[in-house]
Amino acid sequence: MKRRGRKSGKTFKKSSGVSKIKYIDFINQNYRPTKNDLICLFRVEPAKGIKFEEAVGRVASESSNGTWTDVSIESSLIKELAAKAYYIQPPWTKIAYPHQLFEEGNMSQILSSIAGNIFGMKAVKKLRLEDIYWPETILNSFRGPTHGLRGVRKILKIYDRPITATVPKPKVGLTTNEYIDVAKEIWLGGVDLIKDDENLTNQSYIKFSERVKKMFRLRDKIERETGERKSYLINITAPYKEMIRRAKLVNDYGGEFVMIDILTVGWSALQSFRDINEEYQLAIHAHRAFHAAFTRDRRHGVSMKVIAEVARIIGVDQIHVGTVVGKLESPLTDVKALIQICRETRIKENMKIKILKKDWGKVKPIFPVSSGGIHPGLIPKIIEIFGNDLIIQVGGGVLGHPGGPRAGAKAVRDALEATINNINLEEASKHSRELREALDKWGYKTPI
Amino acid sequence: MKRRGRKSGKTFKKSSGVSKIKYIDFINQNYRPTKNDLICLFRVEPAKGIKFEEAVGRVASESSNGTWTDVSIESSLIKELAAKAYYIQPPWTKIAYPHQLFEEGNMSQILSSIAGNIFGMKAVKKLRLEDIYWPETILNSFRGPTHGLRGVRKILKIYDRPITATVPKPKVGLTTNEYIDVAKEIWLGGVDLIKDDENLTNQSYIKFSERVKKMFRLRDKIERETGERKSYLINITAPYKEMIRRAKLVNDYGGEFVMIDILTVGWSALQSFRDINEEYQLAIHAHRAFHAAFTRDRRHGVSMKVIAEVARIIGVDQIHVGTVVGKLESPLTDVKALIQICRETRIKENMKIKILKKDWGKVKPIFPVSSGGIHPGLIPKIIEIFGNDLIIQVGGGVLGHPGGPRAGAKAVRDALEATINNINLEEASKHSRELREALDKWGYKTPI
Repeated sequence: MKRRGRKSGKTFKKSSGVSKIKYIDFINQNYRPTKNDLICLFRVEPAKGIKFEEAVGRVASESSNGTWTDVSIESSLIKELAAKAYYIQPPWTKIAYPHQLFEEGNMSQILSSIAGNIFGMKAVKKLRLEDIYWPETILNSFRGPTHGLRGVRKILKIYDRPITATVPKPKVGLTTNEYIDVAKEIWLGGVDLIKDDENLTNQSYIKFSERVKKMFRLRDKIERETGERKSYLINITAPYKEMIRRAKLVNDYGGEFVMIDILTVGWSALQSFRDINEEYQLAIHAHRAFHAAFTRDRRHGVSMKVIAEVARIIGVDQIHVGTVVGKLESPLTDVKALIQICRETRIKENMKIKILKKDWGKVKPIFPVSSGGIHPGLIPKIIEIFGNDLIIQVGGGVLGHPGGPRAGAKAVRDALEATINNINLEEASKHSRELREALDKWGYKTPI
Repeated sequence: MKRRGRKSGKTFKKSSGVSKIKYIDFINQNYRPTKNDLICLFRVEPAKGIKFEEAVGRVASESSNGTWTDVSIESSLIKELAAKAYYIQPPWTKIAYPHQLFEEGNMSQILSSIAGNIFGMKAVKKLRLEDIYWPETILNSFRGPTHGLRGVRKILKIYDRPITATVPKPKVGLTTNEYIDVAKEIWLGGVDLIKDDENLTNQSYIKFSERVKKMFRLRDKIERETGERKSYLINITAPYKEMIRRAKLVNDYGGEFVMIDILTVGWSALQSFRDINEEYQLAIHAHRAFHAAFTRDRRHGVSMKVIAEVARIIGVDQIHVGTVVGKLESPLTDVKALIQICRETRIKENMKIKILKKDWGKVKPIFPVSSGGIHPGLIPKIIEIFGNDLIIQVGGGVLGHPGGPRAGAKAVRDALEATINNINLEEASKHSRELREALDKWGYKTPI
């Protein structure tokens, strides 16, 4: 066997003006980010024996174009493309990334850089990607929301109050006909949207194709009866090709929304779905199942802020952000920051809540969704936190009502109407047996 | 506005034989899982004030078909579909899930159930999905690897030794022509595969379409010169539609592999890619950038074992599993378990290393890839850990060689050939200047 290469052993020609690049080259406290740099705010806990600056330099290196050893290959672009850690306030650092490191319009690539290998580096004990400043050039390379907050209000013709949604429970285990029966009661009780839960897709006893058909037929009937707009957020979470097939069905039957578990589906399929959605113009409801696997430890992983930003940039129209008062952990400061991230067009940097500057430009505002362990007694508190531009989703708190789902839905709607009219729930419950029963069962308590 | 529903307030008709379902209904220590149940091994740390059994019951409930409150809706399927925690050995529990909870062939849906909301529940302080037993009925609903370990060996016609790969460094910053020049040296030095790094896709100075064309033209030339099979693992990470377009280009130019950042791409696109790949028959190299955001805390998130299993089931042909001795954290026990998960057909449950039984059936074994901070001095140790069925990937350890990339590649190949022939590196380095220089630079040390 010929093996010319192994014999030659010749040294690779180096270009002129060469110098080796080390972690220290990724730190520059005099650097002033340009408007095209993407900036990451990291919380860094160095491994034992590693200095803060070294850990930061290694993070900047590994997430841009460095590696663990000096290399003999040189190119004019290397220094130009290196990330620069320019803000060093242990445990915090801000790292600026030249936008040319990234492929425009490719979120998977961007995240493989700034949220990739670095979490496993031995040089850090813990590492948290807390927030991102997104430069215009990158923002504009994505489609952004199809409808956004205002577009969703237009679809539903609801302009003056929070929108309500209910997930029929048990989330898996109803047959198609049972699901339809429950949905009917919920819609008739006054809730606007029915939503599938994260793990209901196309099981043998509740097939997607039958469910979509029957649900939209029912929806049309109930809209005529009640004179209110209603819709159904059907879960199309599936392999990409199947997701598209299901979206087409939704469109064919007159649906306006789809629901996607964005994290278990992933960014690549979500992006292509958003592209194809130019044709269908469906509003995308983003469920965040799985997020707490990497958001919950506040010293490691990626924050929910970053996930909400990525989702808005790619183009979901509504996303779950927590409740503060529900069954899933979601502290007030986090939820407030997430509400801003969903709804604002400009945000000033605020290091108290660890949020970097945002200028969303043409990227439409989207709806925050509050969900998980909510019942009527919690609605005033939630509206106090969120204001009016909100989707309140109540599942167990409707289906668990002693009077059944229609009464449960009415209790939610009554609690909502009372709250936006500044009537307290005790007062309102004098005129609503359903609300009274809900308050008697759950009170005003936060569930665990 | 008519609002008939809100007036009626009628109670939803309950079916007969009804009983309410609570968290305690999700615990049954007498339950014997059937062969069709999917079983999850969780490590559970209850929140303050919550008993272990309650936390476990709530996890089983939320990940199957329960919710935080009792609900008045009943269906014959509810109890049948409930998950059952049948093994309670704090902090460990095994939960059995009836396979009907899941949609066959839909990995996103499966993970939304068993790795979804539960990580954020207030009832747990920390929660770790450590391993899964996959029943045949679910395994067989996925395609599995196109080529698998043996198929990849056949493509490369390398049957008797580990396969070597190198990522040209800097991972981003070379122009197309610089990349080609470096690749040529590496191939000529004796390395089998060139691989793009996780964040190199289609940047302005190194376009995908030009790179794929020039690299495979070069590859063909070098194969003729050296008489050895060579290939190129080009990174097609992108929105789904673009990923397919790029895979088609790879196929058109005679490529045999693609590289995908499976976690930042996501399961939905990966599954559809695997479907389409019936046409292209490309081998899929899975990079795991992002995993340590949720695998690293051994008490929370999802283990890398689970990720490797999911990847094999969907159908990647090779996946990164760590090095033990490299720059990224990967303890020996983990790596050993991952090697088994990649290569074995049957595995017995072993609670010492927290691995559940596996029976992979027709799902082909795949290649484990060892990568991240490797240099020639570490190769004997890595082969000792992995044995022969392994892809050793050396990036900085080739590109950082004082004699340049060709010398670096030769040092890797010489270290490999020596090791499999039971010659120690000091001895071998007497006949290989390149290996000697590598050992003089890096010794036998583990980098940080």
